[in-house]
Amino acid sequence: MDTSDWQIVRSTPLFGTVSQEVAQSLIGSQPVSVHRKGETLFQQGEAANAFFVVLGGWVKLYRVTPDGNEAVVGVFRRGETFAEAAMFLGGRYPVSAEVVTDTRLLRVDGQLLRCRIKEQPELALAMLASASYHLKSLVEQIEQIKLLSAPQRLADFLLRLSSVREGSTTIELPYEKALIANKLGMKPESLSRALAKLRPLGVSVDREHVSIVDVALLARFVESSDLGEEGF
Amino acid sequence: MDTSDWQIVRSTPLFGTVSQEVAQSLIGSQPVSVHRKGETLFQQGEAANAFFVVLGGWVKLYRVTPDGNEAVVGVFRRGETFAEAAMFLGGRYPVSAEVVTDTRLLRVDGQLLRCRIKEQPELALAMLASASYHLKSLVEQIEQIKLLSAPQRLADFLLRLSSVREGSTTIELPYEKALIANKLGMKPESLSRALAKLRPLGVSVDREHVSIVDVALLARFVESSDLGEEGF
Repeated sequence: MDTSDWQIVRSTPLFGTVSQEVAQSLIGSQPVSVHRKGETLFQQGEAANAFFVVLGGWVKLYRVTPDGNEAVVGVFRRGETFAEAAMFLGGRYPVSAEVVTDTRLLRVDGQLLRCRIKEQPELALAMLASASYHLKSLVEQIEQIKLLSAPQRLADFLLRLSSVREGSTTIELPYEKALIANKLGMKPESLSRALAKLRPLGVSVDREHVSIVDVALLARFVESSDLGEEGF
Repeated sequence: MDTSDWQIVRSTPLFGTVSQEVAQSLIGSQPVSVHRKGETLFQQGEAANAFFVVLGGWVKLYRVTPDGNEAVVGVFRRGETFAEAAMFLGGRYPVSAEVVTDTRLLRVDGQLLRCRIKEQPELALAMLASASYHLKSLVEQIEQIKLLSAPQRLADFLLRLSSVREGSTTIELPYEKALIANKLGMKPESLSRALAKLRPLGVSVDREHVSIVDVALLARFVESSDLGEEGF
């Protein structure tokens, strides 16, 4: 493991905010393994004893279909990890893995990890903290790149609070509209404008209560790019 | 905890793929807590002893700025969790939390969680498996909603493999172009067309090697929506 290998390990969700000492303790002193193109790392159905961080090269995961064909389910490259869920669950690999180009891998051994976590639960908590940070940042990223107009974002938000998929409904919101604006990444005045634009679509507000006349209509509005902010 | 509370817990990233028995063992027999609007859950700087799942209602997280103002950093509602990274790290809450509407919360106690994980490391591994699944699905979601044209997706992919930010570079790819097409969610013939469309932008392929004349130019192509697939 050289400095650039460590940089890669520290860029993965599970080890991103974990100190190098903790990561080292979880990973152990396993040397980096080097694999030739065409090598099989594991077969579908084998005990999932490890997960892998790709330090360089490419690995493909595939299933053999009942008619004997190979269906590729994923291709992993530098900085990516694979088989972690199978390993954490301690089950069997649901797919096979084959090295596609000459590849360097870090193998994280499941048995070692279990022992270390038993001695020091903090190690597991450090990985959970790292995964939690990463989850939050991905959710934020998704919200940012959704590229919906302000009224669409508000409609999307209301729909996610709704317990029904069609017909009418009433949703309770916090009285302070500034909090909703914050949640949606809008200024309070943009929220007011967005609310006004949803009125023709059957959305009305009475203090803490938002009524939606036709939930399915509002859902179509979110999905339609023709009816964006400029459409009104 | 009634059935719909459990449904909410099972919809969170950390407990999503965890069995109800395991979740129950991690959460303990803490009853659901009910809070009135305006109640403070924790103050910035307090020991982070717990994280929370919102079962109903709204909670805001805020910081007090040096000039005494309140800066809201997040608003959390039904189905969302907060303070998990602080709790897992066993540090202090970096923000304060206040209940915004009458709210029902599930409080996951850190000390209990640590004890249980020490007895049964499998419990931590189950949460890590759940977080790993969720991370993968969010990454896929981001790739799907990025809405780039096929040539832009290919360019974005090449740039992420590049070790430089400007100037020229050469990248090694697997020989089997079908694997790259799979990774990008394209058919092999779409990949060939996308590669052809990147040629005028200084991208050329020689077996396993892709040369990029001007990395910064390619990055501008990915960011520009004017130069999409239809622009060629």
